Amino acid sequence: VSAFLAGGLPQSLGVLSGTGPHGRGLARRFALAGHDVRLGSRDAVRAAMVAERLMARVGHVGRSTAGSLSGVGNDEAAQCDVVIIAAAWEGCDEVLSPLTGQLHGKVVVSCVNPLGFDATGAHRLPTDAPSAAEHVAALLPDCRVVGAFHHLSASLLLDPAASLAGSEVLVCGDRYEAKAIVRRLCHSLTGRVGIDAGRLEMARHIEAFTAVLISINKQYGVQSGVAFPQVPALRAIEATGPMAFGELPDLHSTSESA
Amino acid sequence: VSAFLAGGLPQSLGVLSGTGPHGRGLARRFALAGHDVRLGSRDAVRAAMVAERLMARVGHVGRSTAGSLSGVGNDEAAQCDVVIIAAAWEGCDEVLSPLTGQLHGKVVVSCVNPLGFDATGAHRLPTDAPSAAEHVAALLPDCRVVGAFHHLSASLLLDPAASLAGSEVLVCGDRYEAKAIVRRLCHSLTGRVGIDAGRLEMARHIEAFTAVLISINKQYGVQSGVAFPQVPALRAIEATGPMAFGELPDLHSTSESA
Repeated sequence: VSAFLAGGLPQSLGVLSGTGPHGRGLARRFALAGHDVRLGSRDAVRAAMVAERLMARVGHVGRSTAGSLSGVGNDEAAQCDVVIIAAAWEGCDEVLSPLTGQLHGKVVVSCVNPLGFDATGAHRLPTDAPSAAEHVAALLPDCRVVGAFHHLSASLLLDPAASLAGSEVLVCGDRYEAKAIVRRLCHSLTGRVGIDAGRLEMARHIEAFTAVLISINKQYGVQSGVAFPQVPALRAIEATGPMAFGELPDLHSTSESA
Repeated sequence: VSAFLAGGLPQSLGVLSGTGPHGRGLARRFALAGHDVRLGSRDAVRAAMVAERLMARVGHVGRSTAGSLSGVGNDEAAQCDVVIIAAAWEGCDEVLSPLTGQLHGKVVVSCVNPLGFDATGAHRLPTDAPSAAEHVAALLPDCRVVGAFHHLSASLLLDPAASLAGSEVLVCGDRYEAKAIVRRLCHSLTGRVGIDAGRLEMARHIEAFTAVLISINKQYGVQSGVAFPQVPALRAIEATGPMAFGELPDLHSTSESA
């Protein structure tokens, strides 16, 4: 973990249930930024096809340090240093339950938005859990769960012409060091470290706000993210501290993520 | 109403329960922008004192078209063309119940954030109503209720050195024309018409997101609003239409607000 805080990045990124638009978009952007990404699915053959199609489109785009993108089973994606769960809300339990052992101690990122759609637009689904991220944390008590990437739309992530330079990523979590790893990862997408939005329970409002963002984007015919004009664009991980929100340091950080 | 849509502004703005920080901040900014503002309180004497103090600070700041700011009882503030309810969540019922008759047919703006604070920061209060704005709409079925101004912090509004130029105001509501009036009012604060965020139920997520904004602002020591980089800064009211979200036109717009 200390290597990440000193500026290192995880060697590999897994995207569980990554064949949907949001997962594909994140996988594509992270691969473009130089990461080694394993896009997972319950169906490894389907994942391989999706990854191949994405890479054909990604090409090498003039980068000498291009990352890689491969399609694998979810169990193999779960072996990566950092694991992003990109399942639909309804699929979270089924995807994560068989992987609890493998994911032990890892940084797991939830970008799950529990949203439904009807004629009037997006709305927050009724759920027993207060947020998808907290539900993931309850399913994976031995993991360091972080919420992030909710406000980067799939179409924005998948559009080769779209820049994420104006959009911010809000990162929330109860483990300061795990959050710092993910905040640093955000730099690969937007050119800025993610904004520390506080404790994991903030995911309740970050997730639901995605419905507002979808509504605005539909109304104005744009694909906008969210920005915070007064938050400094150049911000160090070190600008915030582990105890700012009563968060815990990583007690069980393991060699898997070193 | 048509006068507003053609570019006019309401002649007078009432701020119910306006002696708190958020109400004072909105009253101050609207008076500075040239509006005639009546800041209301259950205690008219207290309202007059608060208004006098605010105006002493506002001064004339070089404007030839300065508005006015007077402190009055809530019942008098409720007679204005547009009425903003700036009560704490707990006070909404008590403030609005005696005014239902007077407020009939009016545009009523809820900027109420049902938030509580503890050692870890702001959190959404448990409430029976899905949002404060929807609760206000249920209390005032004969009014055209709009949600707005949630993300402009009191300290930002009250700071003479602070500009709102980078911040956006999200406006939600089920009555398109009432929403258009409030969106136009936003121009007085930020220099841009408010962003149409969709139906009134979006207030659920807009209100709760204020907790995230408070968390971010505390963490970075700033007073930031929210912005949407891809939404055009120059946007006309006419860019959106009444049926975009299945909204209703104003069926009972009255001469009070003409």
